[in-house]
This record gives sequence, structure tokens and C-alpha cells, in this order.
Amino acid sequence: MPRLRLDLAYQGTDFQGWQLQAPGQRTIQGCLEEALARLAGIPDADIRTGKVLRVFGAGRTDSGVHALGQVAHVDIPESRIHLPWRRALNALLPPDIAVLEAAIVDNDFHSRVSARSKIYAYHLWLEPDFVLPQRRAFVWRCGELDVESMRMAAPLFCGRHDFKSFQNVGTEVEDTVRVLNAITFAADPSGRELVLRFQGEGFLKQMVRNLVGCLVAVGKGKLEPQAIPDLLTARDRSQAPATAPACGLTLERVIYC
Amino acid sequence: MPRLRLDLAYQGTDFQGWQLQAPGQRTIQGCLEEALARLAGIPDADIRTGKVLRVFGAGRTDSGVHALGQVAHVDIPESRIHLPWRRALNALLPPDIAVLEAAIVDNDFHSRVSARSKIYAYHLWLEPDFVLPQRRAFVWRCGELDVESMRMAAPLFCGRHDFKSFQNVGTEVEDTVRVLNAITFAADPSGRELVLRFQGEGFLKQMVRNLVGCLVAVGKGKLEPQAIPDLLTARDRSQAPATAPACGLTLERVIYC
Repeated sequence: MPRLRLDLAYQGTDFQGWQLQAPGQRTIQGCLEEALARLAGIPDADIRTGKVLRVFGAGRTDSGVHALGQVAHVDIPESRIHLPWRRALNALLPPDIAVLEAAIVDNDFHSRVSARSKIYAYHLWLEPDFVLPQRRAFVWRCGELDVESMRMAAPLFCGRHDFKSFQNVGTEVEDTVRVLNAITFAADPSGRELVLRFQGEGFLKQMVRNLVGCLVAVGKGKLEPQAIPDLLTARDRSQAPATAPACGLTLERVIYC
Repeated sequence: MPRLRLDLAYQGTDFQGWQLQAPGQRTIQGCLEEALARLAGIPDADIRTGKVLRVFGAGRTDSGVHALGQVAHVDIPESRIHLPWRRALNALLPPDIAVLEAAIVDNDFHSRVSARSKIYAYHLWLEPDFVLPQRRAFVWRCGELDVESMRMAAPLFCGRHDFKSFQNVGTEVEDTVRVLNAITFAADPSGRELVLRFQGEGFLKQMVRNLVGCLVAVGKGKLEPQAIPDLLTARDRSQAPATAPACGLTLERVIYC
């Protein structure tokens, strides 16, 4: 079967995350699989019992997390190879998901396995007295921060580390060593919003949100940057600060070789 | 009574516009007046019968139009002059309105009368196959446009003109001459979105949306730029192209001397 690569954007607000869950849960994977099945000509009765085309995403974003450059792949029937997939999918999908690109790729392309690295952006809202209504769905209202301390702390996370202290409890994987290539800071001209971008070869469940929770604790003066190496070596989630909320996070880009 | 100036942002999507209307209509003015009345200590029974502090806005934005820099004024009881108005109002207002600044000003300041000019931004979404979900509430999906023709047409609207052909029917004012200082174009780096900014000393009802409707008709090749002087001299709304939708429009700034 020919393989279709999909580049996707979504506003995560009204989804229970990427991954298909219990029936009745609204997920990005679920919406995509239903639209793909309709376009592939799978009968309604089969779609209702879950006989659909399986979609594989590069990153299983959590409930409430957004994407501007999620990548997925799906194998489609040979007979549908010439369908204008991008336009057809966008016509069926709800307005909070968009297919930015749709292209037939080699069968050895795998959205997750072939990915070399990913970039996540986390948007912090610094103004304590208000949040711009137009930005409220996409930021964490954390209030004023000492950004200089955060800039000192961020490089301590970069490189190859065991990130077990920053892995969500209950979803553990065995190997918790990951390579984080860079954390960059960008402020908007008004100074109201600060964006932290994380580029890494792989991320544990809720790792970015846990790192942001830690960096914001540094920015609030609740944690010294020097404490970070100890948090990493502790390999204990309970010692690190709380997870940052999902709404501030966006999967911006998946990079392939 | 001391006069309070309020600088406001709102997402217009879920409002029936700025101006107070029939009971049960959700308006920005209505939400502000209710919050101000509560903070001024007006009894609930009086608030319910409309005995509130009257708010005057610089621009009466239509249903669905957004703002990043609307300005309003309201006279408050002397006894409340030291209230932290910005924080207090933001605590009471719904999340789709924000008070960016609140300051006591001279009593001769009037949000509309004292304004020297206003800047409206209109966001056009040019990509025909999708709209980014994160932008869908703030753009008009008009599809591909010949931007060069639009750039040729725009200056024909600038200067002092009778804009009667671009005034919404049913809300006529006598004097339809206005001065439009400039129309500027800005494209985002992706080329997906085009922003037209209109700076003018005064605007007729739906004038910006009617000008955008006209410029988009030029961009679609349905209207020659050379036809614009005739449209202006016709002084007839029915001869000009249709009004652009409200969701693409944002009142960005009100400029005072």
C-alpha cells in the first residue's frame, strides 16, 4: 500500500490529545482516521467498529497541546493514490485540525522512527494583570520572571542526560536517557510573552512541560540554577517542580534527515 | 466625577459587537459597564435595571470584530479613585476582554472626540487549501490574490474622499467625507497571511470592511484598479463589491494628540 505523509496543524484546546482513546473521546488521531477511512471508501459500519486506516504520529501530544508542524503517516489503498488528499481531508476535518501538506512518500518513511529531532515551543505570558484574549488559548499565564536566571539554568539541561526526574509518573519507559540539543529564548517586542524552544532527538512523556515547570521555578526565584544537576542525578520526579500546563505547548516542527 | 481611560483588547468572536443593544445580547460595552458598576458599589438591583456607569468607546466595533487597542472612557465615583482599576476589572471581566491600561485622565479627554486617528488591521488568509486552526478566528479565508494589483489600487482610496459608496446601507450619516491617511501591506514570512492596515482620521460604519471587499475584488481580478475613482464618485453602496467578513478585522490602535 502506498504511504501518505501528512503535515498537520491543530489547536489542541478541545481535543483529548493526539492518541486514540476510549470511544467518545475526541482525539486528533481519531478525527484523522475517520476522515481518511471515509476518503478510502471504507463503509460506515466498519468505521464505527474501528476498521479504519491506522495513522502514526511523530509525537503523541497530550490533551490541550497544540501543533504547527506535527507529522504523521498512513498507508492508503492503491486505488486512492491520485486523490487530492490535502484538499479532501481539509474538507472533512473539523476546523481545529488542518492538513498543511499531504504527499506520497517511500514506504520506509516512518513519522516517528525516521525523525531526527523535534522542536517544541512553550509560550509563557509574563504580564501579571491581564492576558491578551487573542493569546489566552496558547500561553501559560505565569506572571513576571527573572529571565536572566532562566537563561543561566537552561544550558544545564542541554546535551545527553538521564531525564527520569522529568518524566511523567505512571507512563515510565525503561531508557530515560535523551539528547536535548538546545533551549532557545525569544521575547516578543512588547515583553509580554516569552517563548522557550526545545530542540531534541527525543522526548519523554511530558518532558518539555516538566522542564518548563523547572525553568519557571528558577524564574520565580524558587529554585537555584545550581540545583539542576542534582535534580537530574536524583532520577526522581517528585523532587522536581510541578508540570507546566498543556495550553502553552506547541509541537512546531519535526525534522527528518 | 474623575474620568478613567481604559485601553482594551478583546476577541470579538462571541460578542454582538461593542455597543449595548437589546437585553440578553452580549456586548463589550455591556460587560464593561456591569463590571464597572460592581466595582463602583452600585447595587445589583440597579445594575439589572441598567443604572450603571456609561462607557464611551473610541470605535463602535461591529459584531465579530476584534481589538488590540480600543480606548474607552468612563466617569467613576470620586470615592473609587484609588481602586486598582486594571487588576480589579480584569478579575471581573470574561476572558475574551482584557484591560491593558487603566488611568485617571483629564475630564476633557473623550475617547472618540479626542482621537486624532485610528489604525485598523485586516487579516487576509491566502492559502486556498487550509487555514491554520490557530488563526481561523482572526482571518478572512479569501484564497489567492494578485497582491500587486491591490497595491496599485490602495492609494486611490487615500486622502480626503467622499466614502458614501463604502458606508453600510441603513446606518447613514450626513457627512460621508473622511480622510484616509494610509493603507499599508504586510505579509507574514510564510506568505499565507496578508495584513492590510488602514490609518484614518475617521471611519464610516463598516468602511474598512467595505474597502477590503473592494481591494480583494481587485486581487481576484474581478475589478480593475482604474474603476475605483468611479466607485467613489458614484456615492452608491450598491455599485461597490460586498463587505468583507468581520472576523478578519482588528482595531489595533487609537492615536491621540
